[in-house]
Amino acid sequence: MASRQKILLLGATGGTGSSILNGLLESNQFDVEVLVRPSSAEKPAVKEIESRGVALRVVDITAPEQELASGLAGIDILISAIGPHDLLQQKTLVRAAKSAGVKRFVPCAFITVAPPKGAMLLRDEKEEIYNEIKRLEVPYTVIDVGFWHQISIPPLPSGRIDYALMMAEPVIHGDGNAPNLITDLRDIGRFVARIVDDDRTLNKYVYTWSDVLSENEIFDIVEEASGEKIERKYDTAQDIEKRLEDALAALSLDPTDPAKRLPVYIVQYIYSKYVRGDNQPRYAKYLGYLDARELYPDLKLVSFREYFAEVLEGKGKRPYH
Amino acid sequence: MASRQKILLLGATGGTGSSILNGLLESNQFDVEVLVRPSSAEKPAVKEIESRGVALRVVDITAPEQELASGLAGIDILISAIGPHDLLQQKTLVRAAKSAGVKRFVPCAFITVAPPKGAMLLRDEKEEIYNEIKRLEVPYTVIDVGFWHQISIPPLPSGRIDYALMMAEPVIHGDGNAPNLITDLRDIGRFVARIVDDDRTLNKYVYTWSDVLSENEIFDIVEEASGEKIERKYDTAQDIEKRLEDALAALSLDPTDPAKRLPVYIVQYIYSKYVRGDNQPRYAKYLGYLDARELYPDLKLVSFREYFAEVLEGKGKRPYH
Repeated sequence: MASRQKILLLGATGGTGSSILNGLLESNQFDVEVLVRPSSAEKPAVKEIESRGVALRVVDITAPEQELASGLAGIDILISAIGPHDLLQQKTLVRAAKSAGVKRFVPCAFITVAPPKGAMLLRDEKEEIYNEIKRLEVPYTVIDVGFWHQISIPPLPSGRIDYALMMAEPVIHGDGNAPNLITDLRDIGRFVARIVDDDRTLNKYVYTWSDVLSENEIFDIVEEASGEKIERKYDTAQDIEKRLEDALAALSLDPTDPAKRLPVYIVQYIYSKYVRGDNQPRYAKYLGYLDARELYPDLKLVSFREYFAEVLEGKGKRPYH
Repeated sequence: MASRQKILLLGATGGTGSSILNGLLESNQFDVEVLVRPSSAEKPAVKEIESRGVALRVVDITAPEQELASGLAGIDILISAIGPHDLLQQKTLVRAAKSAGVKRFVPCAFITVAPPKGAMLLRDEKEEIYNEIKRLEVPYTVIDVGFWHQISIPPLPSGRIDYALMMAEPVIHGDGNAPNLITDLRDIGRFVARIVDDDRTLNKYVYTWSDVLSENEIFDIVEEASGEKIERKYDTAQDIEKRLEDALAALSLDPTDPAKRLPVYIVQYIYSKYVRGDNQPRYAKYLGYLDARELYPDLKLVSFREYFAEVLEGKGKRPYH
């Protein structure tokens, strides 16, 4: 595109948002501003972003539509990496983006590939926002990224990589053979910087991946590269289904309690990825997604094997810390 | 495709279904069977279909999934033109189609182009079926046809074409300038026969059109071809919005009453087509639809002007009669 576009990023201090901010800045293709909620303006993470020379724009996203639209003045591309509990706050943001003439709204997707409804509550809520976007004919791109390398590594018996892990136990879910899209957390931003500047992705869904691996393949790579043998534990489809039923039953007693939503989110991720087998290229294409690797074959990405080598060298990084 | 595919059509006695049956038979490309509900097996309209040499398959679509799946044995393509009040009965049908290995399910769409949610209750219910299809990864094609020529003609002062009309008054909605996709009822089947046998339309949305015309353009054609001057009445956007609010308020008191749903359906059609301007190529493409005219440029179709000439000659046909 001819002129330098102005991007406003919401959620820049989160895991996904940080990667997006880095990717956008590295690309050096955009004027980037970070949306900061009034209550967050003084937070260290925000100060850190400011210290990198990034312009901050303080906007109350719970403000009425017209006020919010003023806050979006001059923005070409709005990227939302809002947290999972605030997803529905994007409804007013969609309307404000339309009023403000935003040329592309990237709503908070950035999860695994899953059906639009009925398999993942988290996805269902995102769908409410996509539907609002479509009702208002706002130009958009939905970007899903699968799971992250950084949260896909099982622990080793020696404990030497625990510093970098989210996973507490070496568990294989179901038969462990379902292929899964996984993206290195740092690659998310690299993909996003390409996707949002590409006419081919306008009003489309796109999935990114640094690798496609089953759990069995991941465990094999980890064993081979570490030289350690992992005693694999198995979580059967039946056990997962049972936990899902229990989590849903608990949530149904108090549907708005975040503490009851979280277990549902977690078990539904597992169920969708490993039992249903949703998070893979075949199903993504069935759903109409474009493949970001086909769009950007030149992009240099971090394979799972490469990331795991970093972890073994002590250079891994545990997300959410 | 290499071998002759077996199609099962549900709803073949309805307006849309009749056109589809005709189109499939005319194409001579398929083995066509018509699904008949046990309660309808002896109806004259069904006997009439049978007399044309079409195989009937008596299936109770409210049966449990496994029984229904047996009823779908050997079917490659299942086309549903079920009535608006029975849409949700397709849920079991989707699951049965998956069990039975149906290679393409064409759920009941066949309406105007509209957003997936929040503008038309009728469309919202169809979306529930599309979501179930996607959740189960059933191969599908959604086909929307816009409005029909046959219900788009205003009455003439002389009354000479009243025999063929649905419209009682010559009303322009809003400013009358919104372009609308319209398909001659007979062309629907011609399009469907092409679409369901085309790999390019698998797991896609497609819209058909014999013409794209605004109400003002339709009225101009009708005046010019008939030589009669129509006194146009105007239904303002505000009046339409008010009626929509009233209809929704009445429905909210008894959400399952079909007699209260119908007024909502009707006013939402009007609101979507003429106030929102949904039913047009630009918005269809935004939503990801393929254009059937671009796919099948050789298809011989009936323009609105041609259909209206038939009406003037006494050869028109009022639908639903």
